[in-house]
Amino acid sequence: MGTVGFLPKLLSLVFFSVVVCFTNSVADVGLDERPSMPSGRASRPRFTGKFAREGGAVKTAYKYETRYFSQPLDHFSFAELPTFDQRYLVGGDGQWSSSGGAGGGRGPIFFYCGNEGDIEWFAANTGFVWEIAPSFGALVVFAEHRYYGKSMPFGSRDKAYENAASLSYLTAEQALADFATLITGLKRNMSAEKSPVVLFGGSYGGMLAAWMRLKYPHIAVGALASSAPILQFEDIVKPETFYNIVSNDFRRESLSCFKTIKDSWDVLESEGKKLNGLMNLSRTFHLCQKLNGTQELSDWLNSAYSYLAMVDYPYASEFLMPLPGNPIKEVCKSIDDHADGRGILEQIYAGVNIYYNYSGDVECFDLEDDPHGMNGWNWQACTEMVMPMSSSPDSSMFPPYAFDYSSYQDQCIQDLGVRPRPRWVTTEFGGHDIVAVLKEFGSNIIFSNGLLDPWSGGSVLQNISGSIVALVTELGAHHIDLRSSTEEDPEWLTSQRASEVNLIRGWINDYYEERRAAQGVENVVDFAASSTNASRVL
Amino acid sequence: MGTVGFLPKLLSLVFFSVVVCFTNSVADVGLDERPSMPSGRASRPRFTGKFAREGGAVKTAYKYETRYFSQPLDHFSFAELPTFDQRYLVGGDGQWSSSGGAGGGRGPIFFYCGNEGDIEWFAANTGFVWEIAPSFGALVVFAEHRYYGKSMPFGSRDKAYENAASLSYLTAEQALADFATLITGLKRNMSAEKSPVVLFGGSYGGMLAAWMRLKYPHIAVGALASSAPILQFEDIVKPETFYNIVSNDFRRESLSCFKTIKDSWDVLESEGKKLNGLMNLSRTFHLCQKLNGTQELSDWLNSAYSYLAMVDYPYASEFLMPLPGNPIKEVCKSIDDHADGRGILEQIYAGVNIYYNYSGDVECFDLEDDPHGMNGWNWQACTEMVMPMSSSPDSSMFPPYAFDYSSYQDQCIQDLGVRPRPRWVTTEFGGHDIVAVLKEFGSNIIFSNGLLDPWSGGSVLQNISGSIVALVTELGAHHIDLRSSTEEDPEWLTSQRASEVNLIRGWINDYYEERRAAQGVENVVDFAASSTNASRVL
Repeated sequence: MGTVGFLPKLLSLVFFSVVVCFTNSVADVGLDERPSMPSGRASRPRFTGKFAREGGAVKTAYKYETRYFSQPLDHFSFAELPTFDQRYLVGGDGQWSSSGGAGGGRGPIFFYCGNEGDIEWFAANTGFVWEIAPSFGALVVFAEHRYYGKSMPFGSRDKAYENAASLSYLTAEQALADFATLITGLKRNMSAEKSPVVLFGGSYGGMLAAWMRLKYPHIAVGALASSAPILQFEDIVKPETFYNIVSNDFRRESLSCFKTIKDSWDVLESEGKKLNGLMNLSRTFHLCQKLNGTQELSDWLNSAYSYLAMVDYPYASEFLMPLPGNPIKEVCKSIDDHADGRGILEQIYAGVNIYYNYSGDVECFDLEDDPHGMNGWNWQACTEMVMPMSSSPDSSMFPPYAFDYSSYQDQCIQDLGVRPRPRWVTTEFGGHDIVAVLKEFGSNIIFSNGLLDPWSGGSVLQNISGSIVALVTELGAHHIDLRSSTEEDPEWLTSQRASEVNLIRGWINDYYEERRAAQGVENVVDFAASSTNASRVL
Repeated sequence: MGTVGFLPKLLSLVFFSVVVCFTNSVADVGLDERPSMPSGRASRPRFTGKFAREGGAVKTAYKYETRYFSQPLDHFSFAELPTFDQRYLVGGDGQWSSSGGAGGGRGPIFFYCGNEGDIEWFAANTGFVWEIAPSFGALVVFAEHRYYGKSMPFGSRDKAYENAASLSYLTAEQALADFATLITGLKRNMSAEKSPVVLFGGSYGGMLAAWMRLKYPHIAVGALASSAPILQFEDIVKPETFYNIVSNDFRRESLSCFKTIKDSWDVLESEGKKLNGLMNLSRTFHLCQKLNGTQELSDWLNSAYSYLAMVDYPYASEFLMPLPGNPIKEVCKSIDDHADGRGILEQIYAGVNIYYNYSGDVECFDLEDDPHGMNGWNWQACTEMVMPMSSSPDSSMFPPYAFDYSSYQDQCIQDLGVRPRPRWVTTEFGGHDIVAVLKEFGSNIIFSNGLLDPWSGGSVLQNISGSIVALVTELGAHHIDLRSSTEEDPEWLTSQRASEVNLIRGWINDYYEERRAAQGVENVVDFAASSTNASRVL
């Protein structure tokens, strides 16, 4: 039992996922009774389980039409493969048709780069785009990412997720090519070739938005990449970054809360080893079924803390779960308030109960609610999105853990039958020395981040150039700027969004101006046919 | 027989190929006895036949080592596919190791983006890179393009070219990903991560160089894209452009020569219809075997004229064939000199004999010297590289022809079992409105072109921004700047190369400066871990 916790496992946080791999080497962590990092198996399904797989149950005030666009499965080869239908949502057609556009054509297109889940859920949780679109006379398009929601190759989710072969076209480059093809096709079909396209995305979707602007500048004039950790690869940022930020979020609310959590792992582990210990743990945490080991409980707790850091919004929200405003403050308050001698695990329960049961109507908790044990992000994390994550014994409240690529790879091969390409993302998209690389290259990207968000550590937090800029808020969490405005928005958030609107307006105005300026000279390229008035340099 | 000439055929010029597709509709061209554009079947093999397939026979003064690098067949999927070995040539190691580099590490890397042929042949014909490398202390790498030379997937050329399935990974994006992976791997293996990489390429290789700088700015600091017609797609330039330039090249030397060629097609066609006409034509043109029709002879003539325009260098050269300096002038002189009543076809023969037989030792001409009738460029032209080409009745000396995509597609399906994606290149790489798109995006690309080169019409001929510049020479032909210097180089050529060297030096200096400037702030990205000194914007 003692070593079970050290088996290599993948921690896959939902939206988007932290993937941590446990070392096989007991010696690496010192003592075999020491608790390992929670593996988070229980948390994996929540995103796809609750949102993506049950798609259609999303409530939203935004009006859109649902359409489908036929896509090749492999944009970069001519292998004979079936096409698939990509879902996309279109709204704001009224304001767009009538807008006229600054260039005489139709208005701009605001394009959300769908990430790892049902696109309706992203549309419902990205109110910012819907709210600002009318003042731009913009059409709104939310494009679903392949292999998620209803955009399934091979005709169904089961077929798409059947095995490594069927999943092999689930890559970020293919998704970007889908977006490029969709945008180009839509514009042609709607005679809107001249409409400037602005990209939006949060989290992995923000990474896609930023990468798309860099790779397809001819297709989009700019990108708002919110909470997009494009630097969370290889050794670009320290692997402890993510868990340090989560831990700091708790420490800043309450040092005793931080300490209680940090101390709880050992207590949990030793409780689990006692006679009837697992039964007692199951009771303490109100689990529906008896634990088979402490790992699944640790995972469940880890997920709660990490998600809390991501959604530590200043107002009540229902992004991942229904939560009060400043939920970490509430969780810590509950943990601290229960320091009445009942025991550390009771304190922990009182805390996470706020995350998992804020509505108060859960009778017991089911840790394993994903019967498939498989979702798209696991695949992506085991192929391209290899983000090294460690937990530092000094600064993290989580059990210490050192990322070990070899175990990570073994686990991917074992679980999914695929070998990761851990260096491919930086080869394809860059990341190293990003300031130097992009200072004189590229333009019109906003990297927005809130420093409470654990993903901010892998994001771009400084201006790279005059038009590749960072908007950093001290009190923001995971892509809060993309959410709809509320009565309770703090001033810094309102101000951040206003900055974003101004920058986007600038991109669009520049676009129309450049087109006008270029019109006079655009036809020069075929003057050579007459061999006459060439602009001779030599 | 009269309609044979109108069957859709692919004209595939070698290095790189013009692909023209004949309309099936006789009505389109008016009269069915009117000659069609030559289909160029005879010219297809020359490049791969003479150079690529007989690789190894290339004589060169440049010293290099030949190495191989293992590449995934599909960089953009995780389908289980075999790897293949990409060939690359490495030279200048001595100057590089000892150079020290301006940044304290090793010197720069000059990387040639191999195009559609044997890389040794490109290395031998790209003296410019070899000549300038020592003064930069640069390592020289010539990377072979997949599916050419010795860089064959599936173990052999026969296997790689077996069918549409085996060829399906022959795409430009995969080639660029090969280059990116190779460069990254080489730098890591040689502990040269800090070495700036400069890309070079001519023709299709120049397109790859330009696209690579745009898509992989983190991998290369700049690109010299010589004679790179990245705009020869869709309707970006007029489809008549190419043949207009060829025709103008002849007209500027001699109006009567131009007229003789323009008139010759009808004569050739009607001669072919006479009793013993094909036999007479075969004799007139000193063919080894009797013609089966006039088409193959037309193709052969077309090839000669188009190539002559490409290699219309001011000095004697042996790029495609041994030729005198200013070969069009020589050809036209011969055509005009033979206007002595012997007949127009004899004049034509006297002209093309200079192209096909300048050495004078050919006894008879073999039009069909490609037993396979298949090469890599045909595949690329039938998949991504769909370049519409027409011949204008007004301005071209070639038979009139209007590009018809439908026939083009039919022919690709029939010949190669593949359906082209005619809009994919501009979706993936752009091209439309290039000035507006890149004015504020991207940097450090030289588009060099000579206006005698028929490919210049599809290239970038004006400065796009301060650092995406056009170097245009009135008297240059196909990537003459990449050739080794000669005693006979005209002043404009020396001056063009000096400009290129200065620009490249600027890129490299900027690179070192930016790295130095960035070093102080590069570590800012993980400051968020401590949640302290964040550069708060809001």
